[in-house]
Amino acid sequence: MKHYDLVVIGTGPAGQKGAIQAAKLGKRVAIIEKATVLGGAAINTGTIPSKALREAVLHLTGHAKRGLFGQSYRVKKDITIADLAAVSQQVIRHEWELIQDQLERNGIDLIWGKAHFEGPNLLQIQRNGDAELLTADKFLVAVGTRPARPTNVPFNETSVFCSDQLLHLERLPKSMIVVGGGVIGTEYACIMATLGVRVILVEGRSKLLGFLDDEITEAFQYQLRRAGITLRLGEKVEKIDEVKGDPTTGGKPLVQATLESGKRLRAETLLYAVGRQGVCGALGLDNVGISFDDRERLKVNDHYQTNIEHVYAAGDVIGFPSLASTSMEQGRRAVCHAFGVKEDNFNTLFPYGIYAVPEISMVGQTEEQLTEAGIPYEAGIATYDEVSRGKLLGDHTGMLKLLIHQDDHTILGVHAIGTQATELIHIGQAVMTLKGTAQYFIQNVFNYPTLAEAYRVAAYNGLNKLRHI
Amino acid sequence: MKHYDLVVIGTGPAGQKGAIQAAKLGKRVAIIEKATVLGGAAINTGTIPSKALREAVLHLTGHAKRGLFGQSYRVKKDITIADLAAVSQQVIRHEWELIQDQLERNGIDLIWGKAHFEGPNLLQIQRNGDAELLTADKFLVAVGTRPARPTNVPFNETSVFCSDQLLHLERLPKSMIVVGGGVIGTEYACIMATLGVRVILVEGRSKLLGFLDDEITEAFQYQLRRAGITLRLGEKVEKIDEVKGDPTTGGKPLVQATLESGKRLRAETLLYAVGRQGVCGALGLDNVGISFDDRERLKVNDHYQTNIEHVYAAGDVIGFPSLASTSMEQGRRAVCHAFGVKEDNFNTLFPYGIYAVPEISMVGQTEEQLTEAGIPYEAGIATYDEVSRGKLLGDHTGMLKLLIHQDDHTILGVHAIGTQATELIHIGQAVMTLKGTAQYFIQNVFNYPTLAEAYRVAAYNGLNKLRHI
Repeated sequence: MKHYDLVVIGTGPAGQKGAIQAAKLGKRVAIIEKATVLGGAAINTGTIPSKALREAVLHLTGHAKRGLFGQSYRVKKDITIADLAAVSQQVIRHEWELIQDQLERNGIDLIWGKAHFEGPNLLQIQRNGDAELLTADKFLVAVGTRPARPTNVPFNETSVFCSDQLLHLERLPKSMIVVGGGVIGTEYACIMATLGVRVILVEGRSKLLGFLDDEITEAFQYQLRRAGITLRLGEKVEKIDEVKGDPTTGGKPLVQATLESGKRLRAETLLYAVGRQGVCGALGLDNVGISFDDRERLKVNDHYQTNIEHVYAAGDVIGFPSLASTSMEQGRRAVCHAFGVKEDNFNTLFPYGIYAVPEISMVGQTEEQLTEAGIPYEAGIATYDEVSRGKLLGDHTGMLKLLIHQDDHTILGVHAIGTQATELIHIGQAVMTLKGTAQYFIQNVFNYPTLAEAYRVAAYNGLNKLRHI
Repeated sequence: MKHYDLVVIGTGPAGQKGAIQAAKLGKRVAIIEKATVLGGAAINTGTIPSKALREAVLHLTGHAKRGLFGQSYRVKKDITIADLAAVSQQVIRHEWELIQDQLERNGIDLIWGKAHFEGPNLLQIQRNGDAELLTADKFLVAVGTRPARPTNVPFNETSVFCSDQLLHLERLPKSMIVVGGGVIGTEYACIMATLGVRVILVEGRSKLLGFLDDEITEAFQYQLRRAGITLRLGEKVEKIDEVKGDPTTGGKPLVQATLESGKRLRAETLLYAVGRQGVCGALGLDNVGISFDDRERLKVNDHYQTNIEHVYAAGDVIGFPSLASTSMEQGRRAVCHAFGVKEDNFNTLFPYGIYAVPEISMVGQTEEQLTEAGIPYEAGIATYDEVSRGKLLGDHTGMLKLLIHQDDHTILGVHAIGTQATELIHIGQAVMTLKGTAQYFIQNVFNYPTLAEAYRVAAYNGLNKLRHI
């Protein structure tokens, strides 16, 4: 029976980076994958496929250039899911190779099969009827989540489906109800709308993407509506069922979502994107004494330890924010703690990136958080229209907001919506992390023309407002 | 006769920002423009038109996506100069309005006409035969440059032309000789090649863009050759003349460039892009006692003062690097010095952005500079293929290089070639300026997928190499 310093369960972002960190510390590491492919949801069903789809859609529909070339400009008229999936598959294959290569180069044992705890340090791996036992000092549970599939939703994979199925659709529907205005529901709603699908987005809370700064959400919601998406906010879905279509238009069956408010929404298809479900139930965690919540998610402390201290957990399985970027860092930090590695700087800021249309990103605090905490700030705002590259790109709606401390001019938060927002945020993140102030953006030179110049415009805007206090 | 605290000559980037800085300090400012439009070469003939052309070309030819959609994928088959110029004009009009608005909002007097010094503090402005006199305490000369037009080059504006004329071409030529491998020649050579024009680029020195890091230039030259551009490096043009075309292929006249090495190059057109020429001769600078060199450029000290201390100069008129971004900062600094404003931090780094295909950018020092200065460094390298967004974008040739001090791990230089290089450089610039080290990129979280992740990969690469020393 093989013994390891660390066994990682799951090869998604949290598992990968945790395993690699341990290997770099000279530890004997195994990583276990129950699927037939590496990378978890990030590579195979979630992050990468949706982003590949998004890039392909934006390019093929010429969306990014419409501001310059006019609304009628479209690159390709009849887009099939096949066009789009082809791009995605190529990227996914690359990612598989990259992960495999990284695991091999770091001497990590990759074991295919289903993991089941038989005791606090004893794990059984089942594959094709065979079973293998191994022991380890430490464990990292990074098994991820899958879309929640409530029994009262009549999933049929062609007209009613979850996000995993969306990419397998054989043709583009004319219309889609998206239930759930979180990251996944919102991103797909945007992509579908860009493709010309008529989209109705239903969210139980009064705003989409609740963790964002209100001004950004407002701009985002405004733009979604302008793009033709119907938003039903503060509305809950009571019932979903299939109904007969209108006989005067061919009579194809439709999906009907009945809201608690009594409204009935109808469309060709329905994407159910409310919540994700852990998959801890099958791990035998009761044999270790680890408990999980009703959505099979694990609770961890600040060091990513479960209630049993030698078992760590990271990634989607521990809940918000469930972004690949943060999961990687959680996995790495969990392993650093497990092996007693202290790092200089653990006060890192976690940026959020939303790959909607337009792109959204933030780092630090929102206006609402600062107001609640009683921290005096001023907001410096730049629209992309104020910088030359914004105009060159035809992005008339992008904006960047700096939240500047009224007294010491440190940066408390950066919020961006528009082209390349997820990239641009890292400039502000560096200045925040390294204790720069709003003056940084004025005293330094930006390439011309760049979107990055928006930082300078926003800093001037904010500091000018502060001068009048 | 009106008196001003500051008179600025020229409304290009250096003049604009200088004037605005003075206005923000509460000074009475006038700005003078001899052309019929605002903005100088940056807006009207140089930076913006070339970048607008580049964006339009990249999109219309689908260049950015070829990696993913295959070489045969092209958005539009017959591109006319009209398609491209339309985009540019729209952006230029926006810029004019923006500048006018900024000048007005800051209470700056805009005076149209030609400026001529009549004495150290006395300026005459001529327009349509009228003349106006004004006096000022300080002057900022920001008159820019125009393309050099040596008399032995037979310019005719249709087959032999300089960069100002390129945008006015009525049709795309089949082939073009570009003489001059500086920023302007190189950028246009790339744009033309992307449009399918057969390009021969001739440069007198042994490498293009001499100020870049050698590894970046090497990668760039390799990619230019792969894109079908013929490079003639270390070759000087001796003679340019028109010759009869080959009668078997229609016999249209061709341009012939004879090199000192005896080679004869032939093409339909020739872009002459060697050097730019100052326009100081007409300013009456001898009435103030200011001298200029044989290319009519001014020499300034570290504070941007000419040999006469109340007359400052900034922008292209003072030479390298002649980038809009640095010119703006020069104008601002000159004015700060003129009015005795001390700033905390004048040790800012100047980034360089080259809008070639691919994009190139750098900040800090090159490997060659560090080696010569005896500063021990290690290079950390990431290719775009190592980050997911690079693959999503289909950019297989992009790369980012961090030059890391071997002892304290500070960042000494950042060099990037590939998609969005001019934007990405600003992340590294912030870390360098604010004294972060290579560890910054490892300890912080990047949105996934982003090109910014290349910083993390490059930092790991560099620090791993350092571990083995």
